[in-house]
Amino acid sequence: MTVTVAVDAMGGDIGIDVTVPAALNLLSLDPDVNLILVGQQDLIDRKLKKLRFKPTPRLTIHHASEVVSMDEAPALALKKKKDSSMRVAIDLVKLGQANVCVSAGNTGALMATARFVLKMMPGIERPAIATKMPSINGHVYVLDLGANVDCDAEHLQQFGIMGSTLCAAIDGIEKPTVGLLNIGHEAIKGGEVIKQAALLLASSPINFYGNVEGDDIYRGTVNVVVCDGFVGNIVLKTSEGLAWMLSQMIKNEFKKNIFTKLAALIAMPVLNSFRKKVDHRQYNGASLLGLKGLVVKSHGGADAYSFRHALQYAVSEHRNNVINRIETTINKLNFSEHAQ
Amino acid sequence: MTVTVAVDAMGGDIGIDVTVPAALNLLSLDPDVNLILVGQQDLIDRKLKKLRFKPTPRLTIHHASEVVSMDEAPALALKKKKDSSMRVAIDLVKLGQANVCVSAGNTGALMATARFVLKMMPGIERPAIATKMPSINGHVYVLDLGANVDCDAEHLQQFGIMGSTLCAAIDGIEKPTVGLLNIGHEAIKGGEVIKQAALLLASSPINFYGNVEGDDIYRGTVNVVVCDGFVGNIVLKTSEGLAWMLSQMIKNEFKKNIFTKLAALIAMPVLNSFRKKVDHRQYNGASLLGLKGLVVKSHGGADAYSFRHALQYAVSEHRNNVINRIETTINKLNFSEHAQ
Repeated sequence: MTVTVAVDAMGGDIGIDVTVPAALNLLSLDPDVNLILVGQQDLIDRKLKKLRFKPTPRLTIHHASEVVSMDEAPALALKKKKDSSMRVAIDLVKLGQANVCVSAGNTGALMATARFVLKMMPGIERPAIATKMPSINGHVYVLDLGANVDCDAEHLQQFGIMGSTLCAAIDGIEKPTVGLLNIGHEAIKGGEVIKQAALLLASSPINFYGNVEGDDIYRGTVNVVVCDGFVGNIVLKTSEGLAWMLSQMIKNEFKKNIFTKLAALIAMPVLNSFRKKVDHRQYNGASLLGLKGLVVKSHGGADAYSFRHALQYAVSEHRNNVINRIETTINKLNFSEHAQ
Repeated sequence: MTVTVAVDAMGGDIGIDVTVPAALNLLSLDPDVNLILVGQQDLIDRKLKKLRFKPTPRLTIHHASEVVSMDEAPALALKKKKDSSMRVAIDLVKLGQANVCVSAGNTGALMATARFVLKMMPGIERPAIATKMPSINGHVYVLDLGANVDCDAEHLQQFGIMGSTLCAAIDGIEKPTVGLLNIGHEAIKGGEVIKQAALLLASSPINFYGNVEGDDIYRGTVNVVVCDGFVGNIVLKTSEGLAWMLSQMIKNEFKKNIFTKLAALIAMPVLNSFRKKVDHRQYNGASLLGLKGLVVKSHGGADAYSFRHALQYAVSEHRNNVINRIETTINKLNFSEHAQ
């Protein structure tokens, strides 16, 4: 089955110098993918020429005259820039001309535009951002990562159901375990919203593990970790900061003197193999879940290797039927609630 | 000035096998410290004999017949165990027989008992747990770490003032920078409580930096990071989990085969020096702030080296006059509020 991906070619800190090479790379890797590069025709054309790209019907350009900047207010972007590369890429999903769209642009604008154009799935009140993070035994899906600052218990329940379904679809795990991020494993921990969410999750058609703590994310305790967007964003950024600090410190330690530099030379292959395993670029690509269409967010600062991973992740979302599967699980939930 | 520390000798996952050796170690390191070991007299006596301790008036035993277990409900511990080592150690601070007390016991019970016995400082509504965490350029104080799950803007403001004063007192920094943990640097980010807290912090007699993100903790952006106890606990645990995972992965990488094992041998001194720098044991000792007396919480799983650090941290809190300094800053705040 051929998958068509609409690529917001202008989005991200870097734009076409990242998105176009990543797109061409994917074309050569996956014969069943077609790409639509959305953005300023002349700039994209020039870039393609520079990369000596041989025209193929598998790659088309869809002109969009405007660009949403990285710090633009989401509401303004939505209202004023109806011909932005981001908006047009989402429109193509809405119109059925693409199966999924990928953008490295402004997260808030992407979320607001996607929600406006594609609408929410029935039964889901808020979209959530979900991504894979590394864990000791593979990876873990974490959501929400910043779309929702204040969540009630029902929202957290819906995130749990969407996360479980996403993990089942992408990784082929039949009954993924879902944990609720809390400050203790005991049911008495946390505020009222979290206690209520635990009860709702326990009564949902998923494999609810119970409360998990921050360290459980990396211990591989569960397949999916649910939290509100404020906490999720803090988890992600804190982890980025700690990983950065540790790598800086270890580098400095190896650079100290001639002996440590020699040691570094000898340890290099081992350190590189380690680095490859925890390379965050292979985890690039976050799902905007709960919408009636597939939208994938790439890290704004992604390089071409990293952006290609986001494109591949988007392709796997469509191939694994993520939208239909979430709809089915939500319908089951509504059915069981009405049956009560 | 001699400092007298009341030590909850029975507290923690391990108890006297950790607390007593740590106490003796500190006695030999710091001639201006006296210690009161609080707990079961016969057990402590036996341990001291085993360690061939020569009696000195600098170390006394204060018998307490009960022990609060690590998973005991705080309210029950407070109500039922009036002769626990934890309770009696706090009582000694209240009675002026000790300047500060240190416990590795049940955090909830310690907080509840300390609050009940010592009472809150005027102007502070909620106690907070503060600790040092490593950062690229030294360390950063983070609070609250779990005492308060739901905080309003005034609580966060009070945490900022207490954290700033703690940092100024312990590190001798005149105007420590204080950041509010949020999901973006812009003032429009976060929910209502956090926006309101930012306004209050900006009008407080401290050096308020503004919003910081999770990675700023480790980037050394500010001296003090303020958050509610739910988020603080998640930050701490997530960091523990990530550091654990990375160290496991790097160990496994070096254990792979004979060549990587050789590389490990050569890189060992460098890796050990790195490990020493980020050794969390030297950061052991969290302050319970906002009470009318000094209480320091040690990690429950601390070893003797780590527990000694908590004892030393407690001594430095008293030497640096933390209680009076916080009272003075809070009075300034109240004065300026009344003057408005």
